[in-house]
This record gives sequence, structure tokens and C-alpha cells, in this order.
Amino acid sequence: MARVVVDVMPKPEILDPQGKAVAGALPRLGFAGIGDVRQGKRFELEVAEVTEAVLADVHRAAETLLSNPVIENYTVRVEDAGADA
Amino acid sequence: MARVVVDVMPKPEILDPQGKAVAGALPRLGFAGIGDVRQGKRFELEVAEVTEAVLADVHRAAETLLSNPVIENYTVRVEDAGADA
Repeated sequence: MARVVVDVMPKPEILDPQGKAVAGALPRLGFAGIGDVRQGKRFELEVAEVTEAVLADVHRAAETLLSNPVIENYTVRVEDAGADA
Repeated sequence: MARVVVDVMPKPEILDPQGKAVAGALPRLGFAGIGDVRQGKRFELEVAEVTEAVLADVHRAAETLLSNPVIENYTVRVEDAGADA
């Protein structure tokens, strides 16, 4: 079993109210030194094996089910055990 | 400016209804070869510079504001330009 991670983030030009809320709350809670915050989604998909066909499926799933391509960008990466720190 | 990424995922022993919904929808949409799905959150924090004090602040923010430590785990990592593929 391998793990494929799909990160879905709001596009830079799109307003991100969740991130803005977090960024506004940080100073009130005493956290300085943190500027802008963007909030997105992270999906961890378990796949039996990483083949080109499976990765193509993951890309299509990311584009059609996991993200809204009008307002969000996604990245797909394979995360092997111990490969991602 | 550097970017610090906080990934918040439901703990393995916690039921993840959002992930289950995605995992159930995938076969219906014709995506085979993808097994279990877990859905979490990804926060991208912009910080002026990465110091131990800032990272300690990010860890405290992740534990108190960004995640619910009863049901979620979080990871913090620094993502330099070009360092994370």
C-alpha cells in the first residue's frame, strides 16, 4: 500500500475567509510573527500500488471530486513511508 | 518570507465521515484502485523568518487554534521555495 496526498488550496486570487479568520485570531491569542494564513484541504488516499494509470485516476478525481477547479488548485504527490519528512 | 505548512488530520482511530464519503463516491464515479481516504486540513502560514521562537509559536497555534488535539494530529513543516516538490 502506498499513500498519495492531494492538497487542495484556494487560488491566490480567491478570498479565503477561513484563512483570514485564523490570521485575525492569531494576534488576539498572543501569537506574533505569523502573517497571512491560507486554509485548504488535505486528502490522504491509500492505493494498492502507484502506477501511471492510478495516478491519472487520482488526478482526475482531484479535479472532479476533491477540488473545485474554478476557485481551487490541487497538487498530487506520492508519499512513501519515510520519504516525506 | 517563508512558508510554514501545518497539516491537521483526524487521528487514525477516529471515524472520518468526510473521507468515508469521498471513498464511497470514488467507485461510483468510475475511479478504481483507490482504497481508504482520509480528509484533513492544510494551513499555509507566511512568516517573516523561521526562528525557533516562531516555530514554537506555530506549534502552540497548531495545538490550540488549528487542530483539536482530542481527535486530530498535526504536523508542522517549513516549506522553502523549491524545497518541497
